[in-house]
Amino acid sequence: MENLAAVLYDKNDIQIELAPLLTPGENEVQVSIRQVGICGSDVYLYANGTHGTNQLHGPCIIGHEASAVITQVGQNVNNVKVGDRIVLEPGEFCGECKNCLRGIQNMCLTVKPYEGANDNGYITRFKVVKASNCHKIPDNVSDEEGAFMEPLAVAVQDCRRARVEAGKSVLILGSGSIGLLCMMVAKAMGATNICITDIVEERLKLAKELGATHTLLTSSKDIDDTVNKIHTVMGEMPDITIECSGNTFCQKLSVMATIPAGCVVFVGYGDTDVTLPIAVIAQRQIEIRPAWRYDRFCFPIAINLVASGRVNVKPLVTNKFKLEDTVEAIQTASSRKPGVLKCMVQCYE
Amino acid sequence: MENLAAVLYDKNDIQIELAPLLTPGENEVQVSIRQVGICGSDVYLYANGTHGTNQLHGPCIIGHEASAVITQVGQNVNNVKVGDRIVLEPGEFCGECKNCLRGIQNMCLTVKPYEGANDNGYITRFKVVKASNCHKIPDNVSDEEGAFMEPLAVAVQDCRRARVEAGKSVLILGSGSIGLLCMMVAKAMGATNICITDIVEERLKLAKELGATHTLLTSSKDIDDTVNKIHTVMGEMPDITIECSGNTFCQKLSVMATIPAGCVVFVGYGDTDVTLPIAVIAQRQIEIRPAWRYDRFCFPIAINLVASGRVNVKPLVTNKFKLEDTVEAIQTASSRKPGVLKCMVQCYE
Amino acid sequence: MENLAAVLYDKNDIQIELAPLLTPGENEVQVSIRQVGICGSDVYLYANGTHGTNQLHGPCIIGHEASAVITQVGQNVNNVKVGDRIVLEPGEFCGECKNCLRGIQNMCLTVKPYEGANDNGYITRFKVVKASNCHKIPDNVSDEEGAFMEPLAVAVQDCRRARVEAGKSVLILGSGSIGLLCMMVAKAMGATNICITDIVEERLKLAKELGATHTLLTSSKDIDDTVNKIHTVMGEMPDITIECSGNTFCQKLSVMATIPAGCVVFVGYGDTDVTLPIAVIAQRQIEIRPAWRYDRFCFPIAINLVASGRVNVKPLVTNKFKLEDTVEAIQTASSRKPGVLKCMVQCYE
Amino acid sequence: MENLAAVLYDKNDIQIELAPLLTPGENEVQVSIRQVGICGSDVYLYANGTHGTNQLHGPCIIGHEASAVITQVGQNVNNVKVGDRIVLEPGEFCGECKNCLRGIQNMCLTVKPYEGANDNGYITRFKVVKASNCHKIPDNVSDEEGAFMEPLAVAVQDCRRARVEAGKSVLILGSGSIGLLCMMVAKAMGATNICITDIVEERLKLAKELGATHTLLTSSKDIDDTVNKIHTVMGEMPDITIECSGNTFCQKLSVMATIPAGCVVFVGYGDTDVTLPIAVIAQRQIEIRPAWRYDRFCFPIAINLVASGRVNVKPLVTNKFKLEDTVEAIQTASSRKPGVLKCMVQCYE
Repeated sequence: MENLAAVLYDKNDIQIELAPLLTPGENEVQVSIRQVGICGSDVYLYANGTHGTNQLHGPCIIGHEASAVITQVGQNVNNVKVGDRIVLEPGEFCGECKNCLRGIQNMCLTVKPYEGANDNGYITRFKVVKASNCHKIPDNVSDEEGAFMEPLAVAVQDCRRARVEAGKSVLILGSGSIGLLCMMVAKAMGATNICITDIVEERLKLAKELGATHTLLTSSKDIDDTVNKIHTVMGEMPDITIECSGNTFCQKLSVMATIPAGCVVFVGYGDTDVTLPIAVIAQRQIEIRPAWRYDRFCFPIAINLVASGRVNVKPLVTNKFKLEDTVEAIQTASSRKPGVLKCMVQCYE
Repeated sequence: MENLAAVLYDKNDIQIELAPLLTPGENEVQVSIRQVGICGSDVYLYANGTHGTNQLHGPCIIGHEASAVITQVGQNVNNVKVGDRIVLEPGEFCGECKNCLRGIQNMCLTVKPYEGANDNGYITRFKVVKASNCHKIPDNVSDEEGAFMEPLAVAVQDCRRARVEAGKSVLILGSGSIGLLCMMVAKAMGATNICITDIVEERLKLAKELGATHTLLTSSKDIDDTVNKIHTVMGEMPDITIECSGNTFCQKLSVMATIPAGCVVFVGYGDTDVTLPIAVIAQRQIEIRPAWRYDRFCFPIAINLVASGRVNVKPLVTNKFKLEDTVEAIQTASSRKPGVLKCMVQCYE
Repeated sequence: MENLAAVLYDKNDIQIELAPLLTPGENEVQVSIRQVGICGSDVYLYANGTHGTNQLHGPCIIGHEASAVITQVGQNVNNVKVGDRIVLEPGEFCGECKNCLRGIQNMCLTVKPYEGANDNGYITRFKVVKASNCHKIPDNVSDEEGAFMEPLAVAVQDCRRARVEAGKSVLILGSGSIGLLCMMVAKAMGATNICITDIVEERLKLAKELGATHTLLTSSKDIDDTVNKIHTVMGEMPDITIECSGNTFCQKLSVMATIPAGCVVFVGYGDTDVTLPIAVIAQRQIEIRPAWRYDRFCFPIAINLVASGRVNVKPLVTNKFKLEDTVEAIQTASSRKPGVLKCMVQCYE
Repeated sequence: MENLAAVLYDKNDIQIELAPLLTPGENEVQVSIRQVGICGSDVYLYANGTHGTNQLHGPCIIGHEASAVITQVGQNVNNVKVGDRIVLEPGEFCGECKNCLRGIQNMCLTVKPYEGANDNGYITRFKVVKASNCHKIPDNVSDEEGAFMEPLAVAVQDCRRARVEAGKSVLILGSGSIGLLCMMVAKAMGATNICITDIVEERLKLAKELGATHTLLTSSKDIDDTVNKIHTVMGEMPDITIECSGNTFCQKLSVMATIPAGCVVFVGYGDTDVTLPIAVIAQRQIEIRPAWRYDRFCFPIAINLVASGRVNVKPLVTNKFKLEDTVEAIQTASSRKPGVLKCMVQCYE
């Protein structure tokens, strides 16, 4: 039994090679990876060797959106058994620092997951992980749906940080995978007026099919004009804006479009510094609540949302690849072609 | 133009008689009432002349769940105009007391709406009300749906007090109108596992059609046995229990069935005092959050939920009456027949 | 009885002139103004004729931090009577818009207090105001202390928005009046580690006397260096940073100094646009919660804090003036001399 | 080096005997216990062999309020080193269940700390504990103060559950150790009007010295009369009532005395079932938020409060004993003599 893996050595350099086949220690399990989705940050890391303040420090297996099956169980493991179908929650935390003690493990001060340690990722046949990083999925959730739990957990975090509630109006900037997932989660949380924007018409069509109440093609580069269009389409100022595009225009737009006392969540970002209208932020008391990865309860919520049929991620899988073709998967994901949303890599033979 | 009204003089004594036709003063409007739903508290007040700590202090027009149309507008009214279709939010508040200042007008310390002042109600042809008690409804919401906004605002308050969120499991005890509305609101807020109980099978069938994930016929009078059944049916302990039956067994059951650190909302109550398992409440840290009427933002949320199709109240209208037959409407509502949910009184000719 | 007033006609143009002596209408009272404090925004408005997005639209009486005594009472007034000592809460709201309904009257969408309507202010002998803008003060609170309730309500809003809690560490940038008031409120709320900074040593001395656990003279213009100094002085990263200086360096510093998952409150601002480190904001999940004026319950809290001795505002009164010398009061306030904190104008003869 | 311990075998049967001297394993430390305070639950357990739904299942070392010094360190321990002065946080949790994932480890569904597992306690010379149960204390906190961190963490949890905030009015029923600690914590959190009650005048005198704004001797057994007295003394209805006495009269009183929309925290309880005025709870929307032990961030808060001088626990230490005299310590604590508050057992020679 050979353990093939997609290893990122440097920017634009991924090797498909053999990796060691490990045995699980105490509190660990060995899993057979099933499906891994390609994330925008994988694309960015492949192209640049960095992402935000994160640096590639050495060869690492790429990919962090994975479903798997338990193949071996170490000592002291109680939450899963061999044969269980699971999804993997990336990320580690110390459990003892100030942030861990107050339940914000995604901001652990010891492990610093927000500084993006280059842990080996999931595009490999087999992997040993901590048992506590495994969440079981029910039979009615497929492997491909399972691989969506990580980005869906991000969308759950985004919408929870935004405090989406029944009856709220929500503006989502950007109709990529995360934008569409945020839209579906906002809807599942009871938002009754949801407008999503993009510069590509085909994506808006899908957004409408998946439940957006309004869509807006945003070609203009005039902020005031775009704000007016948004308010006209929505029939009101949005209570919440979730900025998923990462571009500077949309970051400023998100502040200007939101209702006074409303909330802006920055999900994506490109530039490390950006000029924001601070007088408007102050005078309109616009809260800015960024979101980074997910609190620990986001995975179970994501699983419940898919298992109950409240969120349908299947239409987002647009392109499928084998492990051996990981580079092609990443290149396809980076093509930004309208029809490409989630590229999925099958890791088992 | 005659203004007929259903006036409650004493318990079991409602007269259909002429009421004065008033002209609106400053900040007031005159409305033509369209539909008024009969509430359990109307039934109780008619049968007993009291409800909770409230007393009937003199003749009053009955009914507080109403849709209407604006027929005249007084000075200084900006939020509505003649011809607008609206729903009426009952209740007054001073705006200056400690509770009003912190935004809890349903607990106004001056007006004391929680002590149930016997304001004249809404089963009448025409009525003068404060403009600020009117909420506009869109064209796609019918008069009968409009008359549901008051009980739906109660359900919104209940579910908000319970902090229903995406992925939560919710147990609802009692499948009367409020129970069914709470179930639909909990679903709209993202609850993925909702079990509703009753002693009448027909109601559970409707509950299932309206979106309950599980139903349970509760005939047993054994608490532990019923708790076990609930946990088995739901596959877990509920995060939240919303107690809508008002009976003592269910009040105790609600505490015993809920997950440690969970929440119980008492919506209904019959007896003024009840014995509760305080050691369990303390050791399992069960929060008890009663709900009384609604915060001021609940009506707009209720309107959004119906207008957007997220909550469907139409199947709850089971019996229709004319204003002249208000007593029959109340008697039908009090019959507790399985097929009877909401009795609706048409107030216009 | 003549009603003298300080009227701002244009930038750098205040006239001390007679104003009409009005009689209170329904829900109104006439008050004799006692003391009025000069605010930084008064200074800015006097010097520039604008503040943020606010414009001076015509002559207006200046000053908005006032204590007063009730001299006449109109119809329908229940909360105060002639002779009551009160403080004035500036600001109006409609009570009916989306933000008023959810209890955020400082962001009223109809009146738009955040756009700074040029209502006549309080530096005048007598004034007619809404009864609902009056808050009674107890005998042990002096007129000068009363005039501090408005800026103290700002500090209460700032600390509440920041969610200061027992045991938290708080960094306050800027030791002007608002910075010192925020420091004292943070202490009253249980913060156990409070560092306040300034570029003027004398102010830090006062800050220490008033309860700061640490002070830091910040002369460096190097962000990283200043962040290190702050962390060293405090012995930890602050949970919360309240930015009271309004300068661009400190706005960026506030983000960089705060613990991951911490919170930054922007109180002051100078430039309308500012470049912020968005990658750090996102990756460290730093919440930005600006604060504008105050929620309606902030005045009662401010009064309780002073009346109970928890906050001592007396040392902040550094310069006293008569109404006729309002221009001198404003010029003194704008001098930025180390020893000048709050300039107080006596409005009665 | 002998390891003496106070072992509870059955009700009224404690043996002072030798216990094994263990070596720490991975993630564990060995500590020399310094001081251990006697808690009301120790007294109850000694007298009855049970507490609430908890049962004594076999011999166990008694005592759970302890300070200590690290004497040996096992593998993988990073948070403490030999010689560190610490306090011990009792309690275990799995870290993986639904409640642990959402940060409510005191309600862990696997370990069930709320069912009171009879773990060996702390009245012993030496003990091996998990490193993660140790919190360092600074030099200015004494061993006796350190032994107060556990009950102080309870008081922090109580006041946080009650949402005590600046300017709030708080009623505390019962002036035992927990009542006094809650009073001091409420004050540290900014409560400006705090009334504490008892049936013993001497305790009220101490309460006043420690910072209560009002005290009330409650001899009456008439609820309405007592409610009136409380409102008169406080000058208002309390926003929050923290019930620390555990008796039925006070449990009912707490509901009746609290402002509509206020909050009641049940800290203590005696009877397992109690009759509560549910109609009042519902109509006044009184939230009942019980508190059990503490969230994980309560210990650091408690340490900060003592180290910063905001809470002074020293006057509560009224009686001191040696380990060999543990039975006498418990009997003294159970005497309910007015002068007895906290009995402290010194565990080192």
